[in-house]
Amino acid sequence: MITPMIRLGVLGGGQLAQMLTQAAISLGIDMTIFERSADSPAGRLTRREIIGAWSDEAALEAFATQCDLATLENEFVDAAFVQWLERRGLPVYPTSATLAIVQDKLLQKQCLEVAGLPAPRYCEVATPDVVHAAAERCGWPLLLKARRDGYDGYGNATLHTPDDIPAAWARLATNNRQLMAESFVPFAKELAVMVVRGHDGETRTYPVVETVQRNHICHIVRAPAPIAESIATRAQTLAHRAVQAIDGIGIFGIEFFLLADGTLLVNEVAPRPHNSGHYSIEGCVTSQFENHLRAVLNWPLGPTDLRTPAVVMINVLGQRNGEARGDGLDEALAVPGAHLHIYGKRQVRVGRKMGHVTALGHTLEESEALAQRAADLIRL
Amino acid sequence: MITPMIRLGVLGGGQLAQMLTQAAISLGIDMTIFERSADSPAGRLTRREIIGAWSDEAALEAFATQCDLATLENEFVDAAFVQWLERRGLPVYPTSATLAIVQDKLLQKQCLEVAGLPAPRYCEVATPDVVHAAAERCGWPLLLKARRDGYDGYGNATLHTPDDIPAAWARLATNNRQLMAESFVPFAKELAVMVVRGHDGETRTYPVVETVQRNHICHIVRAPAPIAESIATRAQTLAHRAVQAIDGIGIFGIEFFLLADGTLLVNEVAPRPHNSGHYSIEGCVTSQFENHLRAVLNWPLGPTDLRTPAVVMINVLGQRNGEARGDGLDEALAVPGAHLHIYGKRQVRVGRKMGHVTALGHTLEESEALAQRAADLIRL
Repeated sequence: MITPMIRLGVLGGGQLAQMLTQAAISLGIDMTIFERSADSPAGRLTRREIIGAWSDEAALEAFATQCDLATLENEFVDAAFVQWLERRGLPVYPTSATLAIVQDKLLQKQCLEVAGLPAPRYCEVATPDVVHAAAERCGWPLLLKARRDGYDGYGNATLHTPDDIPAAWARLATNNRQLMAESFVPFAKELAVMVVRGHDGETRTYPVVETVQRNHICHIVRAPAPIAESIATRAQTLAHRAVQAIDGIGIFGIEFFLLADGTLLVNEVAPRPHNSGHYSIEGCVTSQFENHLRAVLNWPLGPTDLRTPAVVMINVLGQRNGEARGDGLDEALAVPGAHLHIYGKRQVRVGRKMGHVTALGHTLEESEALAQRAADLIRL
Repeated sequence: MITPMIRLGVLGGGQLAQMLTQAAISLGIDMTIFERSADSPAGRLTRREIIGAWSDEAALEAFATQCDLATLENEFVDAAFVQWLERRGLPVYPTSATLAIVQDKLLQKQCLEVAGLPAPRYCEVATPDVVHAAAERCGWPLLLKARRDGYDGYGNATLHTPDDIPAAWARLATNNRQLMAESFVPFAKELAVMVVRGHDGETRTYPVVETVQRNHICHIVRAPAPIAESIATRAQTLAHRAVQAIDGIGIFGIEFFLLADGTLLVNEVAPRPHNSGHYSIEGCVTSQFENHLRAVLNWPLGPTDLRTPAVVMINVLGQRNGEARGDGLDEALAVPGAHLHIYGKRQVRVGRKMGHVTALGHTLEESEALAQRAADLIRL
């Protein structure tokens, strides 16, 4: 049994680390935050704040001496640095081996394919010429993707004809970034499932949620997803298998495409707390953040059941660039039962995730109306 | 409208400030913690930590420059220091005027009496001789109490005969502490109600809870209290009036004695989040901590309804003296649906509040069995 005064390190200090810290407080865990710049949302919640590049060995060393074990809040930390920490004697969950697979979208696809999980067609594309061959295999329109470091649509391009290749290639393949191609999937819905898995393989699966993206950014999450029970069960089974396939320890977000004919395809795996799981803070018996801590610390996992029949989360996105303000917060707080989460980012940018609102109710319609009303009032 | 990056100061850095910080994170509030010693549960969650005696003017000045407004987590900060801050231009809620009344149990009683609230008989006792006269008014057994700084039974003595006076007086009246006497109330149950009141007088009342003390320390809280609806309504009305009487801004815990004949007597008012309100973190739509922040910041108050039919909170108290450990935490986490709150205190003492467990359920029996099972497993 690890002492409750355990020092847990987090690679990353954004809102995911911040919400992880909120959960960690209840469990008596001291947090160490490693972020590239000072005054991050989670960094300001601890005196154990390490500032530096992920590649900065002195900073990594300082981090390692200030924690007993570590986790990460994003998949962009190169697995090599995580491996450096592991070799230094610091256990990190998810492990560098899991991270190495997940952070390269091509390796991730290959791993899921080997595990027999259904996914969109894909291929490696080493040069622009190969994109033509990829289109023959995957069809048009074709998705061109950076293998690494893409998020919220950054690092993606949709090609409709061969004429689109040169511009997309020029934009995405800067700095010798490696690319891959993937079938464009005409989905009926996007779904997501959070899965938490412990050291011993014990696994708990959260309800299937529907995610609605706007400009490639998660906008609305509806829990449970308004889909047939049989589809939900299948999505949960596939999500469980995906986390097994990457030997994941901790919490993972598994994104799915649901086609009109009921086909489910795994879109992507995120090796961390996920935007589609924020609803669980108020909406589930154990939040994704607490269950991530439990899994990483080798503690028993908590129940993942919904607390109410319907929970909806709506993101609060930046609508301008500049210093963040808090206009409309008081009006939003007047919406009864709307739960606000403000990430405390000092700077706002268009489309930047600044916070979210969650509402619980008897129906998705009721919850969504409430969350939307509050979210619309906030102007950060 | 105050910006969400507002800097809120807290006088005190214990578990109440810690849980207040957890709630503050969601609202984008930066916390400044003023505590007498370093590494307090809340102090380690901010870089704005001020260490010093309440009477240390340099520390008070540093505190005032680092926050936009302030609140307090205990009633033992002398109102004069709060008034110093107010004169320095720092708004503090509850105000020094409210605090001055509440922190002196005699003034508090007098204030509630003037407001027509039912309470046990009491009188000022300036010398041991006066205690005899007090007993004539209040009867035997008689409670002798320090007017200030008493908590969890410290500063109280129960006198059964005049022979008990000298020893009790000698123990309690050290350092010229002023004392008061009060009727011993043979209560059937102890009840408590949290009330939150905003700058504009807007007030929300939480459900009435039953509190069970063990050795004068809060041990179990049952929400809602298993009492008749009419008694609950009366307790809520009295609690509301008590907070009006002291012109309270923020959250207040009002403790009651319920007699066998249904009589309700106000026992005490706490001008801060209260142990009897911890159940509200998971149990109510808006926790006592979030509503305290809303009230202090002049934001709209949130709904105080219970989320489930029955919620029970059980305190985890120290059972020895020494360094805190975390034995049994993992076993407690295996109890499904038990919510752990560990305060991260480095030192354990017999009877010290080290954490609490909350469980939600359909009946009080179900919730209490669950919370008790988890609490029994924790050995800090």
